[in-house]
Amino acid sequence: MIAPSSVFRHRLRVYWEDTDAGGVVFYANYLRFFERARTEWLRDLGFGQQRLKDEAGAMFIVSDTHVRYLRPARLDDELDVTVLVREAGRVALTILQEAWHGDVLLAEGSIRIGCVDAGTFKPRRIPSEILEAIPK
Amino acid sequence: MIAPSSVFRHRLRVYWEDTDAGGVVFYANYLRFFERARTEWLRDLGFGQQRLKDEAGAMFIVSDTHVRYLRPARLDDELDVTVLVREAGRVALTILQEAWHGDVLLAEGSIRIGCVDAGTFKPRRIPSEILEAIPK
Amino acid sequence: MIAPSSVFRHRLRVYWEDTDAGGVVFYANYLRFFERARTEWLRDLGFGQQRLKDEAGAMFIVSDTHVRYLRPARLDDELDVTVLVREAGRVALTILQEAWHGDVLLAEGSIRIGCVDAGTFKPRRIPSEILEAIPK
Amino acid sequence: MIAPSSVFRHRLRVYWEDTDAGGVVFYANYLRFFERARTEWLRDLGFGQQRLKDEAGAMFIVSDTHVRYLRPARLDDELDVTVLVREAGRVALTILQEAWHGDVLLAEGSIRIGCVDAGTFKPRRIPSEILEAIPK
Repeated sequence: MIAPSSVFRHRLRVYWEDTDAGGVVFYANYLRFFERARTEWLRDLGFGQQRLKDEAGAMFIVSDTHVRYLRPARLDDELDVTVLVREAGRVALTILQEAWHGDVLLAEGSIRIGCVDAGTFKPRRIPSEILEAIPK
Repeated sequence: MIAPSSVFRHRLRVYWEDTDAGGVVFYANYLRFFERARTEWLRDLGFGQQRLKDEAGAMFIVSDTHVRYLRPARLDDELDVTVLVREAGRVALTILQEAWHGDVLLAEGSIRIGCVDAGTFKPRRIPSEILEAIPK
Repeated sequence: MIAPSSVFRHRLRVYWEDTDAGGVVFYANYLRFFERARTEWLRDLGFGQQRLKDEAGAMFIVSDTHVRYLRPARLDDELDVTVLVREAGRVALTILQEAWHGDVLLAEGSIRIGCVDAGTFKPRRIPSEILEAIPK
Repeated sequence: MIAPSSVFRHRLRVYWEDTDAGGVVFYANYLRFFERARTEWLRDLGFGQQRLKDEAGAMFIVSDTHVRYLRPARLDDELDVTVLVREAGRVALTILQEAWHGDVLLAEGSIRIGCVDAGTFKPRRIPSEILEAIPK
Protein backbone atom coordinates (compact mmCIF):
# COMPACT_ATOMS: atom_id res chain seq x y z
CA MET A 1 0.00 0.00 0.00
CA ILE A 2 1.17 3.45 -0.92
CA ALA A 3 1.94 5.76 2.02
CA PRO A 4 -0.40 8.77 2.20
CA SER A 5 2.32 11.44 2.02
CA SER A 6 3.19 12.80 -1.44
CA VAL A 7 0.54 10.62 -3.09
CA PHE A 8 -1.73 12.37 -5.57
CA ARG A 9 -5.33 11.18 -5.65
CA HIS A 10 -7.91 11.55 -8.44
CA ARG A 11 -11.57 10.57 -8.05
CA LEU A 12 -13.69 9.30 -10.92
CA ARG A 13 -16.95 7.43 -11.43
CA VAL A 14 -17.59 4.19 -13.34
CA TYR A 15 -19.99 4.75 -16.26
CA TRP A 16 -21.65 2.32 -18.70
CA GLU A 17 -18.85 2.93 -21.22
CA ASP A 18 -16.31 1.51 -18.73
CA THR A 19 -18.06 -1.83 -18.15
CA ASP A 20 -18.24 -5.05 -20.15
CA ALA A 21 -20.64 -7.98 -20.44
CA GLY A 22 -19.10 -9.53 -17.31
CA GLY A 23 -20.99 -6.76 -15.45
CA VAL A 24 -17.80 -5.09 -14.20
CA VAL A 25 -15.16 -2.63 -15.39
CA PHE A 26 -13.33 -3.90 -18.49
CA TYR A 27 -9.76 -4.50 -17.28
CA ALA A 28 -8.12 -2.55 -20.13
CA ASN A 29 -9.89 0.57 -18.88
CA TYR A 30 -7.75 0.75 -15.75
CA LEU A 31 -4.98 2.01 -18.04
CA ARG A 32 -7.34 4.86 -18.94
CA PHE A 33 -8.16 5.55 -15.30
CA PHE A 34 -4.44 5.57 -14.46
CA GLU A 35 -3.77 8.00 -17.29
CA ARG A 36 -6.54 10.38 -16.23
CA ALA A 37 -4.94 10.47 -12.78
CA ARG A 38 -1.47 11.15 -14.24
CA THR A 39 -2.90 13.97 -16.37
CA GLU A 40 -4.53 15.59 -13.33
CA TRP A 41 -1.34 15.07 -11.33
CA LEU A 42 0.76 16.83 -14.00
CA ARG A 43 -1.80 19.64 -14.12
CA ASP A 44 -1.66 19.88 -10.34
CA LEU A 45 2.12 20.36 -10.66
CA GLY A 46 1.39 23.10 -13.19
CA PHE A 47 1.80 21.34 -16.54
CA GLY A 48 -0.82 20.83 -19.27
CA GLN A 49 0.13 18.30 -21.93
CA GLN A 50 -1.36 20.12 -24.92
CA ARG A 51 0.63 23.20 -23.91
CA LEU A 52 3.76 21.10 -23.34
CA LYS A 53 3.38 19.81 -26.90
CA ASP A 54 2.65 23.22 -28.43
CA GLU A 55 5.28 25.19 -26.52
CA ALA A 56 8.13 22.79 -25.73
CA GLY A 57 7.52 20.23 -28.50
CA ALA A 58 7.64 17.56 -25.79
CA MET A 59 5.30 14.64 -25.25
CA PHE A 60 5.20 11.82 -22.72
CA ILE A 61 4.69 8.36 -24.15
CA VAL A 62 4.03 5.17 -22.26
CA SER A 63 6.70 2.51 -22.80
CA ASP A 64 5.81 -0.17 -20.24
CA THR A 65 2.69 -1.03 -18.23
CA HIS A 66 2.38 -3.77 -15.63
CA VAL A 67 -1.05 -4.04 -14.04
CA ARG A 68 -2.53 -6.52 -11.57
CA TYR A 69 -6.34 -6.73 -11.37
CA LEU A 70 -7.47 -7.74 -7.89
CA ARG A 71 -11.17 -6.97 -7.47
CA PRO A 72 -13.97 -5.93 -9.85
CA ALA A 73 -15.55 -2.46 -9.91
CA ARG A 74 -19.16 -1.92 -10.91
CA LEU A 75 -21.36 0.71 -12.51
CA ASP A 76 -21.71 3.90 -10.40
CA ASP A 77 -18.76 3.05 -8.15
CA GLU A 78 -16.54 5.98 -7.24
CA LEU A 79 -12.86 5.13 -7.53
CA ASP A 80 -9.81 6.87 -6.11
CA VAL A 81 -6.80 6.56 -8.37
CA THR A 82 -3.36 7.35 -6.97
CA VAL A 83 -0.07 8.53 -8.49
CA LEU A 84 3.32 8.09 -6.87
CA VAL A 85 6.65 8.59 -8.65
CA ARG A 86 8.97 5.74 -7.77
CA GLU A 87 11.85 6.61 -10.05
CA ALA A 88 12.61 9.86 -11.85
CA GLY A 89 15.38 9.63 -14.43
CA ARG A 90 16.43 12.23 -16.99
CA VAL A 91 14.33 10.83 -19.83
CA ALA A 92 11.76 8.62 -18.09
CA LEU A 93 9.61 8.23 -14.99
CA THR A 94 8.34 5.08 -13.31
CA ILE A 95 5.01 5.66 -11.60
CA LEU A 96 3.13 3.48 -9.14
CA GLN A 97 -0.64 3.67 -9.44
CA GLU A 98 -3.53 2.15 -7.55
CA ALA A 99 -7.30 2.16 -7.97
CA TRP A 100 -9.36 2.00 -4.80
CA HIS A 101 -13.09 1.67 -4.10
CA GLY A 102 -13.40 2.89 -0.53
CA ASP A 103 -10.78 0.82 1.32
CA VAL A 104 -10.72 -2.00 -1.22
CA LEU A 105 -7.76 -2.10 -3.60
CA LEU A 106 -9.06 -2.99 -7.09
CA ALA A 107 -5.97 -2.73 -9.26
CA GLU A 108 -2.35 -1.67 -9.02
CA GLY A 109 0.15 -0.88 -11.70
CA SER A 110 3.64 0.25 -12.54
CA ILE A 111 3.70 2.58 -15.54
CA ARG A 112 6.84 3.78 -17.28
CA ILE A 113 6.58 6.99 -19.29
CA GLY A 114 9.31 8.52 -21.40
CA CYS A 115 9.70 12.01 -22.78
CA VAL A 116 9.96 12.31 -26.58
CA ASP A 117 10.12 15.00 -29.22
CA ALA A 118 6.50 15.46 -30.40
CA GLY A 119 7.56 15.52 -34.05
CA THR A 120 10.15 12.76 -34.29
CA PHE A 121 9.18 10.55 -31.31
CA LYS A 122 12.90 10.47 -30.37
CA PRO A 123 13.73 10.41 -26.63
CA ARG A 124 14.61 13.74 -25.08
CA ARG A 125 15.20 15.07 -21.57
CA ILE A 126 12.20 15.68 -19.38
CA PRO A 127 11.85 19.50 -19.04
CA SER A 128 13.77 20.42 -15.89
CA GLU A 129 10.88 22.44 -14.43
CA ILE A 130 8.81 19.23 -14.40
CA LEU A 131 11.57 17.20 -12.71
CA GLU A 132 11.98 19.96 -10.14
CA ALA A 133 8.23 20.10 -9.43
CA ILE A 134 7.96 16.36 -8.64
CA PRO A 135 7.83 15.84 -4.86
CA LYS A 136 10.88 13.92 -3.54
CA MET B 1 -29.28 27.29 -27.22
CA ILE B 2 -30.68 25.71 -24.09
CA ALA B 3 -32.14 28.15 -21.56
CA PRO B 4 -30.25 28.15 -18.26
CA SER B 5 -33.22 27.22 -16.04
CA SER B 6 -33.73 23.52 -15.32
CA VAL B 7 -30.65 22.57 -17.31
CA PHE B 8 -28.28 20.14 -15.62
CA ARG B 9 -24.58 20.69 -16.28
CA HIS B 10 -21.68 18.23 -15.94
CA ARG B 11 -18.04 19.21 -16.31
CA LEU B 12 -15.38 16.86 -17.66
CA ARG B 13 -11.88 17.04 -19.10
CA VAL B 14 -10.58 15.74 -22.44
CA TYR B 15 -7.89 13.08 -21.94
CA TRP B 16 -5.61 11.27 -24.42
CA GLU B 17 -8.09 8.36 -24.56
CA ASP B 18 -10.75 10.71 -25.98
CA THR B 19 -8.71 12.00 -28.93
CA ASP B 20 -7.85 10.56 -32.33
CA ALA B 21 -5.10 11.02 -34.91
CA GLY B 22 -6.87 14.15 -36.21
CA GLY B 23 -5.62 15.77 -32.99
CA VAL B 24 -9.13 16.36 -31.63
CA VAL B 25 -11.85 14.48 -29.74
CA PHE B 26 -13.06 11.42 -31.68
CA TYR B 27 -16.67 12.24 -32.60
CA ALA B 28 -18.12 8.96 -31.31
CA ASN B 29 -16.93 9.92 -27.83
CA TYR B 30 -19.50 12.71 -27.54
CA LEU B 31 -22.06 9.92 -27.00
CA ARG B 32 -19.95 8.90 -23.99
CA PHE B 33 -19.74 12.46 -22.70
CA PHE B 34 -23.52 12.83 -23.09
CA GLU B 35 -24.08 9.59 -21.20
CA ARG B 36 -21.80 10.60 -18.33
CA ALA B 37 -23.87 13.78 -17.99
CA ARG B 38 -27.15 11.82 -18.02
CA THR B 39 -25.78 9.48 -15.34
CA GLU B 40 -24.80 12.40 -13.11
CA TRP B 41 -28.17 14.06 -13.78
CA LEU B 42 -30.05 10.91 -12.74
CA ARG B 43 -27.86 10.67 -9.63
CA ASP B 44 -28.57 14.32 -8.90
CA LEU B 45 -32.29 13.48 -9.02
CA GLY B 46 -31.56 10.67 -6.55
CA PHE B 47 -31.27 7.60 -8.79
CA GLY B 48 -28.24 5.33 -9.29
CA GLN B 49 -28.49 3.00 -12.26
CA GLN B 50 -26.83 -0.04 -10.68
CA ARG B 51 -29.29 0.25 -7.81
CA LEU B 52 -32.20 0.73 -10.23
CA LYS B 53 -31.18 -2.50 -11.92
CA ASP B 54 -30.65 -4.44 -8.68
CA GLU B 55 -33.76 -3.19 -6.85
CA ALA B 56 -36.36 -2.39 -9.52
CA GLY B 57 -35.05 -4.65 -12.31
CA ALA B 58 -35.22 -1.61 -14.57
CA MET B 59 -32.65 -0.33 -17.04
CA PHE B 60 -32.56 2.58 -19.45
CA ILE B 61 -31.45 1.77 -22.96
CA VAL B 62 -30.67 4.19 -25.75
CA SER B 63 -32.90 3.75 -28.80
CA ASP B 64 -32.07 6.77 -30.96
CA THR B 65 -29.19 9.26 -31.09
CA HIS B 66 -28.91 12.26 -33.37
CA VAL B 67 -25.73 14.29 -32.93
CA ARG B 68 -24.33 17.27 -34.82
CA TYR B 69 -20.61 17.98 -34.47
CA LEU B 70 -19.86 21.67 -34.82
CA ARG B 71 -16.37 22.42 -33.50
CA PRO B 72 -13.42 20.28 -32.41
CA ALA B 73 -12.26 19.88 -28.80
CA ARG B 74 -8.65 19.25 -27.89
CA LEU B 75 -6.58 17.54 -25.22
CA ASP B 76 -6.91 19.17 -21.75
CA ASP B 77 -10.05 21.16 -22.68
CA GLU B 78 -12.70 21.31 -19.99
CA LEU B 79 -16.18 20.70 -21.39
CA ASP B 80 -19.58 21.46 -19.92
CA VAL B 81 -22.18 18.93 -20.96
CA THR B 82 -25.87 19.76 -20.48
CA VAL B 83 -29.02 17.69 -19.99
CA LEU B 84 -32.54 18.93 -20.67
CA VAL B 85 -35.60 16.69 -20.91
CA ARG B 86 -37.68 17.72 -23.91
CA GLU B 87 -40.28 14.98 -23.77
CA ALA B 88 -41.16 12.63 -20.93
CA GLY B 89 -43.48 9.79 -21.89
CA ARG B 90 -44.46 6.75 -19.84
CA VAL B 91 -41.81 4.45 -21.31
CA ALA B 92 -39.28 6.81 -22.88
CA LEU B 93 -37.56 10.18 -22.54
CA THR B 94 -36.17 12.46 -25.22
CA ILE B 95 -33.22 14.45 -23.95
CA LEU B 96 -31.47 17.44 -25.49
CA GLN B 97 -27.75 17.57 -24.82
CA GLU B 98 -24.99 20.01 -25.63
CA ALA B 99 -21.22 20.05 -25.15
CA TRP B 100 -19.62 23.46 -24.59
CA HIS B 101 -16.03 24.64 -24.29
CA GLY B 102 -16.38 27.99 -22.58
CA ASP B 103 -18.95 29.79 -24.71
CA VAL B 104 -18.30 27.74 -27.84
CA LEU B 105 -20.86 25.05 -28.67
CA LEU B 106 -19.00 21.92 -29.84
CA ALA B 107 -21.75 19.36 -30.31
CA GLU B 108 -25.47 19.01 -29.75
CA GLY B 109 -27.65 15.94 -29.70
CA SER B 110 -31.08 14.53 -29.18
CA ILE B 111 -31.00 11.21 -27.32
CA ARG B 112 -34.01 8.94 -26.82
CA ILE B 113 -33.82 6.51 -23.92
CA GLY B 114 -36.40 3.87 -23.09
CA CYS B 115 -37.00 1.94 -19.90
CA VAL B 116 -36.75 -1.85 -20.16
CA ASP B 117 -36.86 -4.87 -17.91
CA ALA B 118 -33.21 -5.66 -17.09
CA GLY B 119 -33.73 -9.40 -17.67
CA THR B 120 -35.91 -9.52 -20.79
CA PHE B 121 -35.11 -6.14 -22.41
CA LYS B 122 -38.89 -5.64 -22.89
CA PRO B 123 -40.23 -2.07 -22.56
CA ARG B 124 -41.73 -1.17 -19.20
CA ARG B 125 -42.96 2.01 -17.52
CA ILE B 126 -40.39 4.41 -16.19
CA PRO B 127 -40.57 4.19 -12.36
CA SER B 128 -43.02 6.93 -11.30
CA GLU B 129 -40.62 8.40 -8.71
CA ILE B 130 -38.20 9.17 -11.55
CA LEU B 131 -40.89 10.80 -13.70
CA GLU B 132 -42.00 12.85 -10.72
CA ALA B 133 -38.45 13.97 -9.96
CA ILE B 134 -37.83 15.35 -13.47
CA PRO B 135 -38.15 19.16 -13.46
CA LYS B 136 -41.13 20.37 -15.58
CA MET C 1 -33.75 -2.26 -46.27
CA ILE C 2 -30.80 -1.44 -48.49
CA ALA C 3 -30.92 -3.02 -51.95
CA PRO C 4 -28.09 -5.50 -52.52
CA SER C 5 -26.63 -3.78 -55.61
CA SER C 6 -23.81 -1.29 -54.98
CA VAL C 7 -23.88 -1.95 -51.25
CA PHE C 8 -20.50 -2.52 -49.62
CA ARG C 9 -20.43 -5.05 -46.80
CA HIS C 10 -17.86 -5.43 -43.99
CA ARG C 11 -17.89 -8.32 -41.52
CA LEU C 12 -16.67 -7.99 -37.93
CA ARG C 13 -16.99 -9.84 -34.65
CA VAL C 14 -18.23 -8.57 -31.27
CA TYR C 15 -15.48 -8.76 -28.63
CA TRP C 16 -15.52 -8.10 -24.86
CA GLU C 17 -14.33 -4.53 -25.46
CA ASP C 18 -17.53 -3.82 -27.43
CA THR C 19 -19.99 -4.89 -24.73
CA ASP C 20 -21.29 -3.21 -21.58
CA ALA C 21 -22.76 -4.33 -18.27
CA GLY C 22 -26.17 -4.75 -19.95
CA GLY C 23 -24.59 -7.85 -21.53
CA VAL C 24 -24.86 -6.47 -25.07
CA VAL C 25 -22.95 -4.17 -27.43
CA PHE C 26 -22.65 -0.63 -26.02
CA TYR C 27 -24.73 1.51 -28.39
CA ALA C 28 -22.01 4.14 -28.95
CA ASN C 29 -19.85 1.43 -30.48
CA TYR C 30 -22.08 1.15 -33.56
CA LEU C 31 -20.51 4.44 -34.66
CA ARG C 32 -17.17 2.62 -34.51
CA PHE C 33 -18.50 -0.34 -36.46
CA PHE C 34 -19.95 2.02 -39.09
CA GLU C 35 -16.63 3.80 -39.37
CA ARG C 36 -14.64 0.58 -39.79
CA ALA C 37 -16.98 -0.30 -42.68
CA ARG C 38 -16.53 3.14 -44.27
CA THR C 39 -12.75 2.79 -43.97
CA GLU C 40 -12.81 -0.62 -45.68
CA TRP C 41 -15.20 0.72 -48.33
CA LEU C 42 -12.84 3.64 -49.11
CA ARG C 43 -9.93 1.21 -49.26
CA ASP C 44 -11.95 -1.02 -51.57
CA LEU C 45 -12.40 2.01 -53.86
CA GLY C 46 -8.61 2.46 -53.71
CA PHE C 47 -8.16 5.14 -51.03
CA GLY C 48 -6.31 4.84 -47.72
CA GLN C 49 -6.97 7.66 -45.28
CA GLN C 50 -3.46 7.98 -43.88
CA ARG C 51 -2.18 8.33 -47.44
CA LEU C 52 -4.95 10.80 -48.29
CA LYS C 53 -3.80 12.91 -45.36
CA ASP C 54 -0.08 12.63 -46.15
CA GLU C 55 -0.34 13.14 -49.91
CA ALA C 56 -3.40 15.30 -50.53
CA GLY C 57 -3.63 16.99 -47.11
CA ALA C 58 -7.30 15.95 -47.05
CA MET C 59 -9.26 14.37 -44.24
CA PHE C 60 -12.87 13.28 -43.86
CA ILE C 61 -14.58 14.42 -40.70
CA VAL C 62 -17.97 13.36 -39.42
CA SER C 63 -20.43 16.25 -39.07
CA ASP C 64 -23.74 14.53 -38.34
CA THR C 65 -24.76 11.07 -37.13
CA HIS C 66 -28.28 9.75 -36.73
CA VAL C 67 -28.51 6.19 -35.45
CA ARG C 68 -31.46 4.01 -34.47
CA TYR C 69 -30.74 1.00 -32.26
CA LEU C 70 -33.23 -1.79 -32.92
CA ARG C 71 -31.92 -5.06 -31.48
CA PRO C 72 -29.02 -5.97 -29.18
CA ALA C 73 -25.88 -7.82 -30.32
CA ARG C 74 -23.94 -10.11 -28.01
CA LEU C 75 -20.41 -11.32 -27.45
CA ASP C 76 -19.06 -13.48 -30.33
CA ASP C 77 -21.79 -12.40 -32.78
CA GLU C 78 -20.61 -11.78 -36.31
CA LEU C 79 -22.07 -8.60 -37.76
CA ASP C 80 -22.34 -7.43 -41.36
CA VAL C 81 -22.07 -3.68 -41.66
CA THR C 82 -23.17 -2.02 -44.90
CA VAL C 83 -22.22 1.22 -46.66
CA LEU C 84 -24.39 2.95 -49.26
CA VAL C 85 -23.85 6.51 -50.49
CA ARG C 86 -27.17 8.31 -50.60
CA GLU C 87 -25.94 11.75 -51.52
CA ALA C 88 -22.58 12.82 -52.93
CA GLY C 89 -21.99 16.56 -52.98
CA ARG C 90 -18.78 18.42 -53.74
CA VAL C 91 -17.68 18.78 -50.12
CA ALA C 92 -19.73 16.17 -48.26
CA LEU C 93 -21.25 12.69 -48.49
CA THR C 94 -24.33 11.30 -46.78
CA ILE C 95 -23.99 7.59 -46.16
CA LEU C 96 -26.61 5.05 -45.10
CA GLN C 97 -25.31 2.29 -42.89
CA GLU C 98 -26.81 -0.81 -41.34
CA ALA C 99 -25.56 -3.47 -38.93
CA TRP C 100 -26.98 -6.95 -39.40
CA HIS C 101 -26.67 -10.20 -37.44
CA GLY C 102 -27.70 -12.84 -39.96
CA ASP C 103 -31.05 -11.54 -41.24
CA VAL C 104 -31.79 -9.42 -38.16
CA LEU C 105 -31.27 -5.67 -38.51
CA LEU C 106 -29.61 -4.39 -35.31
CA ALA C 107 -28.96 -0.73 -36.05
CA GLU C 108 -29.22 1.71 -38.91
CA GLY C 109 -27.73 5.12 -39.35
CA SER C 110 -27.27 8.09 -41.57
CA ILE C 111 -23.76 9.52 -41.37
CA ARG C 112 -22.66 12.79 -42.96
CA ILE C 113 -18.94 13.19 -43.63
CA GLY C 114 -17.27 16.30 -44.98
CA CYS C 115 -13.86 16.76 -46.54
CA VAL C 116 -11.52 19.20 -44.78
CA ASP C 117 -7.95 20.42 -45.05
CA ALA C 118 -5.96 18.26 -42.59
CA GLY C 119 -4.10 21.28 -41.23
CA THR C 120 -6.78 23.95 -40.93
CA PHE C 121 -9.95 21.80 -40.67
CA LYS C 122 -11.54 24.12 -43.29
CA PRO C 123 -13.95 22.52 -45.80
CA ARG C 124 -12.49 21.63 -49.17
CA ARG C 125 -13.64 19.70 -52.23
CA ILE C 126 -13.62 15.95 -52.07
CA PRO C 127 -10.77 14.76 -54.35
CA SER C 128 -12.38 14.16 -57.76
CA GLU C 129 -10.90 10.67 -58.11
CA ILE C 130 -12.87 9.64 -54.99
CA LEU C 131 -16.13 11.13 -56.29
CA GLU C 132 -15.58 9.37 -59.60
CA ALA C 133 -14.90 6.04 -57.90
CA ILE C 134 -18.17 6.03 -55.93
CA PRO C 135 -20.72 3.73 -57.61
CA LYS C 136 -23.72 5.68 -58.95
CA MET D 1 10.73 -13.67 -30.77
CA ILE D 2 8.05 -16.31 -30.79
CA ALA D 3 8.86 -19.44 -32.81
CA PRO D 4 6.48 -19.94 -35.75
CA SER D 5 5.23 -23.40 -34.72
CA SER D 6 2.07 -23.52 -32.60
CA VAL D 7 1.69 -19.74 -32.71
CA PHE D 8 -1.79 -18.47 -33.53
CA ARG D 9 -1.93 -15.31 -35.63
CA HIS D 10 -4.81 -12.80 -35.98
CA ARG D 11 -4.77 -9.94 -38.48
CA LEU D 12 -6.51 -6.63 -37.83
CA ARG D 13 -6.45 -3.09 -39.17
CA VAL D 14 -5.87 0.18 -37.29
CA TYR D 15 -8.92 2.47 -37.50
CA TRP D 16 -9.49 6.07 -36.36
CA GLU D 17 -11.01 4.79 -33.10
CA ASP D 18 -7.67 3.15 -32.21
CA THR D 19 -5.51 6.26 -32.54
CA ASP D 20 -4.90 9.25 -30.29
CA ALA D 21 -3.78 12.86 -30.74
CA GLY D 22 -0.14 11.69 -30.89
CA GLY D 23 -1.06 10.40 -34.37
CA VAL D 24 -0.49 6.75 -33.45
CA VAL D 25 -2.31 3.85 -31.78
CA PHE D 26 -3.26 4.67 -28.17
CA TYR D 27 -1.13 2.28 -26.10
CA ALA D 28 -4.04 0.99 -23.99
CA ASN D 29 -5.61 -0.38 -27.16
CA TYR D 30 -2.95 -3.08 -27.52
CA LEU D 31 -4.73 -4.85 -24.67
CA ARG D 32 -7.82 -4.84 -26.91
CA PHE D 33 -5.86 -6.13 -29.88
CA PHE D 34 -4.36 -8.89 -27.73
CA GLU D 35 -7.82 -9.85 -26.48
CA ARG D 36 -9.29 -10.01 -29.99
CA ALA D 37 -6.49 -12.41 -30.91
CA ARG D 38 -7.12 -14.57 -27.81
CA THR D 39 -10.84 -14.69 -28.65
CA GLU D 40 -10.13 -15.83 -32.20
CA TRP D 41 -7.58 -18.33 -30.91
CA LEU D 42 -10.12 -19.84 -28.49
CA ARG D 43 -12.67 -19.98 -31.32
CA ASP D 44 -10.08 -21.66 -33.53
CA LEU D 45 -9.70 -24.32 -30.80
CA GLY D 46 -13.51 -24.68 -30.89
CA PHE D 47 -14.64 -22.52 -27.95
CA GLY D 48 -16.90 -19.45 -28.05
CA GLN D 49 -16.92 -17.41 -24.86
CA GLN D 50 -20.63 -16.50 -24.86
CA ARG D 51 -21.42 -20.20 -25.17
CA LEU D 52 -18.88 -21.08 -22.47
CA LYS D 53 -20.68 -18.64 -20.17
CA ASP D 54 -24.19 -19.82 -21.07
CA GLU D 55 -23.47 -23.58 -21.04
CA ALA D 56 -20.63 -24.14 -18.57
CA GLY D 57 -21.10 -21.02 -16.42
CA ALA D 58 -17.39 -20.37 -16.92
CA MET D 59 -15.66 -17.15 -17.82
CA PHE D 60 -12.02 -16.17 -18.31
CA ILE D 61 -10.92 -13.03 -16.53
CA VAL D 62 -7.65 -11.21 -16.92
CA SER D 63 -5.64 -11.01 -13.70
CA ASP D 64 -2.28 -9.62 -14.82
CA THR D 65 -1.03 -7.79 -17.91
CA HIS D 66 2.53 -6.76 -18.63
CA VAL D 67 3.01 -4.94 -21.93
CA ARG D 68 6.05 -3.27 -23.51
CA TYR D 69 5.41 -0.73 -26.26
CA LEU D 70 8.29 -0.63 -28.74
CA ARG D 71 7.19 1.13 -31.92
CA PRO D 72 4.13 3.16 -32.91
CA ALA D 73 1.44 1.95 -35.34
CA ARG D 74 -0.53 4.33 -37.54
CA LEU D 75 -3.93 4.62 -39.17
CA ASP D 76 -4.58 1.96 -41.85
CA ASP D 77 -1.68 -0.26 -40.74
CA GLU D 78 -2.42 -3.98 -40.77
CA LEU D 79 -1.17 -5.71 -37.65
CA ASP D 80 -0.55 -9.37 -36.95
CA VAL D 81 -1.23 -10.29 -33.35
CA THR D 82 0.11 -13.58 -32.01
CA VAL D 83 -0.96 -15.94 -29.21
CA LEU D 84 1.32 -18.48 -27.56
CA VAL D 85 0.53 -20.29 -24.32
CA ARG D 86 3.59 -20.27 -22.09
CA GLU D 87 2.08 -21.87 -19.02
CA ALA D 88 -1.15 -23.81 -18.64
CA GLY D 89 -2.19 -24.49 -15.06
CA ARG D 90 -5.47 -25.93 -13.79
CA VAL D 91 -7.10 -22.56 -13.11
CA ALA D 92 -5.02 -20.08 -15.13
CA LEU D 93 -3.06 -19.61 -18.34
CA THR D 94 -0.11 -17.33 -19.04
CA ILE D 95 -0.09 -16.19 -22.66
CA LEU D 96 2.66 -14.45 -24.63
CA GLN D 97 1.40 -12.00 -27.21
CA GLU D 98 3.03 -9.83 -29.83
CA ALA D 99 1.80 -7.22 -32.28
CA TRP D 100 3.71 -6.97 -35.57
CA HIS D 101 3.50 -4.59 -38.51
CA GLY D 102 5.20 -6.52 -41.30
CA ASP D 103 8.50 -7.57 -39.74
CA VAL D 104 8.54 -4.78 -37.13
CA LEU D 105 7.61 -5.76 -33.58
CA LEU D 106 5.38 -3.02 -32.12
CA ALA D 107 4.39 -4.39 -28.73
CA GLU D 108 4.76 -7.55 -26.69
CA GLY D 109 2.93 -8.67 -23.62
CA SER D 110 2.44 -11.38 -21.06
CA ILE D 111 -1.22 -11.82 -20.14
CA ARG D 112 -2.48 -14.02 -17.31
CA ILE D 113 -6.09 -15.19 -17.52
CA GLY D 114 -7.93 -17.17 -14.89
CA CYS D 115 -11.10 -19.21 -15.12
CA VAL D 116 -13.95 -18.15 -12.81
CA ASP D 117 -17.57 -19.01 -12.16
CA ALA D 118 -19.59 -16.50 -14.24
CA GLY D 119 -22.01 -15.86 -11.36
CA THR D 120 -19.73 -15.66 -8.33
CA PHE D 121 -16.40 -14.70 -9.95
CA LYS D 122 -14.75 -17.43 -7.81
CA PRO D 123 -11.83 -19.34 -9.38
CA ARG D 124 -12.70 -22.68 -10.92
CA ARG D 125 -10.88 -25.26 -13.05
CA ILE D 126 -10.46 -24.53 -16.71
CA PRO D 127 -12.79 -26.93 -18.59
CA SER D 128 -10.65 -29.99 -19.42
CA GLU D 129 -11.63 -29.98 -23.11
CA ILE D 130 -10.02 -26.54 -23.41
CA LEU D 131 -6.82 -27.64 -21.66
CA GLU D 132 -6.66 -30.69 -23.91
CA ALA D 133 -7.17 -28.59 -27.05
CA ILE D 134 -4.23 -26.27 -26.31
CA PRO D 135 -1.22 -27.25 -28.44
CA LYS D 136 1.69 -28.52 -26.30
